[in-house]
Amino acid sequence: MIKLKADYVLTLNEKYEIIKDGEIIFDDKIIEVGKDLDNSLTEIYLGKNSVIMPALINTHTHLEFSSNYTHLEYGDFMNWLNSVLEHREDLFHGCKSECYKSAIKEMKKSGICAFGQISSTGNDLKYLKHSPLKIVYFNEIIGSNPAAVDMIYQDFLARIRESEEVQNEKFKIGLSIHSPYSVHPILMKKVIEIAKNKNLPIQTHFMESKAERKWLENGEGEFKIFFEKHFKNAKPLINPIEFIEQFKDTNTTFIHCVHANENELKRISEIGGYITHCPISNRLLNVGLLNLESVKNFSIPYNVATDGKSSNYSLNLFKEIRAALLMHTDLHPKYLAKDLIKSVTINAAKSLGLNNGSLEKGKDADIITFKLPNKVKNLELLPLQIILHTNKVDNLYINGKEVK
Amino acid sequence: MIKLKADYVLTLNEKYEIIKDGEIIFDDKIIEVGKDLDNSLTEIYLGKNSVIMPALINTHTHLEFSSNYTHLEYGDFMNWLNSVLEHREDLFHGCKSECYKSAIKEMKKSGICAFGQISSTGNDLKYLKHSPLKIVYFNEIIGSNPAAVDMIYQDFLARIRESEEVQNEKFKIGLSIHSPYSVHPILMKKVIEIAKNKNLPIQTHFMESKAERKWLENGEGEFKIFFEKHFKNAKPLINPIEFIEQFKDTNTTFIHCVHANENELKRISEIGGYITHCPISNRLLNVGLLNLESVKNFSIPYNVATDGKSSNYSLNLFKEIRAALLMHTDLHPKYLAKDLIKSVTINAAKSLGLNNGSLEKGKDADIITFKLPNKVKNLELLPLQIILHTNKVDNLYINGKEVK
Ligand SMILES: [Fe+2]
Ligand SMILES: [Fe+2]
Repeated sequence: MIKLKADYVLTLNEKYEIIKDGEIIFDDKIIEVGKDLDNSLTEIYLGKNSVIMPALINTHTHLEFSSNYTHLEYGDFMNWLNSVLEHREDLFHGCKSECYKSAIKEMKKSGICAFGQISSTGNDLKYLKHSPLKIVYFNEIIGSNPAAVDMIYQDFLARIRESEEVQNEKFKIGLSIHSPYSVHPILMKKVIEIAKNKNLPIQTHFMESKAERKWLENGEGEFKIFFEKHFKNAKPLINPIEFIEQFKDTNTTFIHCVHANENELKRISEIGGYITHCPISNRLLNVGLLNLESVKNFSIPYNVATDGKSSNYSLNLFKEIRAALLMHTDLHPKYLAKDLIKSVTINAAKSLGLNNGSLEKGKDADIITFKLPNKVKNLELLPLQIILHTNKVDNLYINGKEVK
Repeated sequence: MIKLKADYVLTLNEKYEIIKDGEIIFDDKIIEVGKDLDNSLTEIYLGKNSVIMPALINTHTHLEFSSNYTHLEYGDFMNWLNSVLEHREDLFHGCKSECYKSAIKEMKKSGICAFGQISSTGNDLKYLKHSPLKIVYFNEIIGSNPAAVDMIYQDFLARIRESEEVQNEKFKIGLSIHSPYSVHPILMKKVIEIAKNKNLPIQTHFMESKAERKWLENGEGEFKIFFEKHFKNAKPLINPIEFIEQFKDTNTTFIHCVHANENELKRISEIGGYITHCPISNRLLNVGLLNLESVKNFSIPYNVATDGKSSNYSLNLFKEIRAALLMHTDLHPKYLAKDLIKSVTINAAKSLGLNNGSLEKGKDADIITFKLPNKVKNLELLPLQIILHTNKVDNLYINGKEVK
């Protein structure tokens, strides 16, 4: 059992309580959070301008692409997609044990205790099964060619079984349907069926680009050219609203949604879906900026994630939410900062179905501590000052154990 | 004399030439730039993925505020302005020799060879006169109370004389008129007169906030409340176009211009003015985002600067242009990246009146070298990849001498 004290304790509970000179007692679970907790434990005071808050959660990344720095073509969604197809294999082969270790190290240093990993091939399993961080390992299905549906599905089932064998308290699994334009509806239904039976979280890329809407709604635009290169007279197989409807009664997170319209946001809200916002990735592919105001107006809890190094230069969540703070110039920085801190803690935990993301009795003791450069008098500005000045943490605890 | 070779040499000349496996020969001035330069000098090859480019120039900062981390009230321009007035003195006193040294160190590490320093009090002179970096030291005048015009002017002349005594090849001076709402027009005219006679560059904050326009155009809004606290029946003393007109036939840079309208941008362009864009500062004070598209449409050369730590968490220019790259989501990242690299080199040199900012024969040998994480096949993407992956430089040369 450990008892820590800091100048500022962010609980991220429902009331978003911030405790000045607060304390927390925990072993693998959080036991108590508050002020002057009368307990015989020797207290560790973390020093001037110290902060204790829930450890961060990076809901969506593609670690298989972590060897990409300058290979892929940024600046345009379709050029990027074509360069991914061109470089996929050498990027996958380029990322071996060291590459996974340094990606995890980068996340750990930035206070991440858990992440959602989209696995395209399953080759990442051997590198991730002993990760010091918690993982929700999303087996991803991709393929819309009717002739290949069975083969794709059998391969997918085999990968699920393999990942199930590795499950432990830090390694959970989820399922990912790559997107509405790249997966056959028959496969979508099967995957959702499995997710319901096994109560697994789902992730799916949705409305990342304008090209996606042009294709799904009228079979036109850049995707038409893209598909015709691979298989003749390809046509869209599902419309956006039908796509969303399928996920009713599941725990599904829609990634990106930059070009989701009000109707689609309403449906996502109605089925209790979550949204993952990847600001840097969206910018590098030049697909624009998610309208966070309307996401909030439809009361959809959103989280922020780094996506993969296929479309990001960093896996550091503090850098990602600082980018979001700078980019959403229509929103007041003080209030946006509060939402952004929530988006990488409690909201992210709900999206991944994890028992952490806030400092409350009974939660997993996933905690980070760090120092601000100076004291913050107005606690309303604490979330903003944390986002401006923090890149690394001093301590990361997962299930109450310090992760070095 | 030194001869360097790198995988990529960005000349920033008129044609924006990028030389693959290029070389540069220099002593205090640049002698030659090109490929396979036949010269008996032993060549230093900087290694795989190495880059040589002009050293960066931070045109606008307020180092007197460098001890601010969390003191000032971000999120709203007027709240911020009031918190600056409240904390000014203890921030100035809080920044002594060490504080100036660490500010300069931070800039040096990020490849800055020269910066424009706005001096509010003159107390910074003793800390800056032996700076390893080039400085254009802008003595700033502020004060709109008619009764105090003479006293303010005499004090201003004394500060100019003091700074003139310190001038050397690395220390130049300039004049700053704080803004159209805070300086009496009589003082403006006198300062412009001096600048013309001594051929000094001028800087002035212009249209940073909506409140500024409401005040200058109809004496209304938050500034009315602000001024009434200090002197009764204050009224605006100049309108925006009159203000710009005064700077005809001078070398003037207008800082911010977030709320400059088309008419005012047109006038700035017609008088050959420059614009300094401070994206992070504008965001922290929640005044919105400069429309770079219209600045370009009026062919006004713009530069990017960090402003002071009074409204920024960093003095690193690579971080500032990366923020600009992320924030201007309406502009294509590949082409914006090219403009942003230009904005902190050749454009910034012109604004400060310095003989550097590009690698061309006869220019001061102000040069930086660093490495990218991987090779870049498509040279069109080199500016973008540099901005994404670079925070620090390996070497900084000023007038051909390496600055450690
Ligand atoms: Fe993704
Ligand atoms: Fe400024």
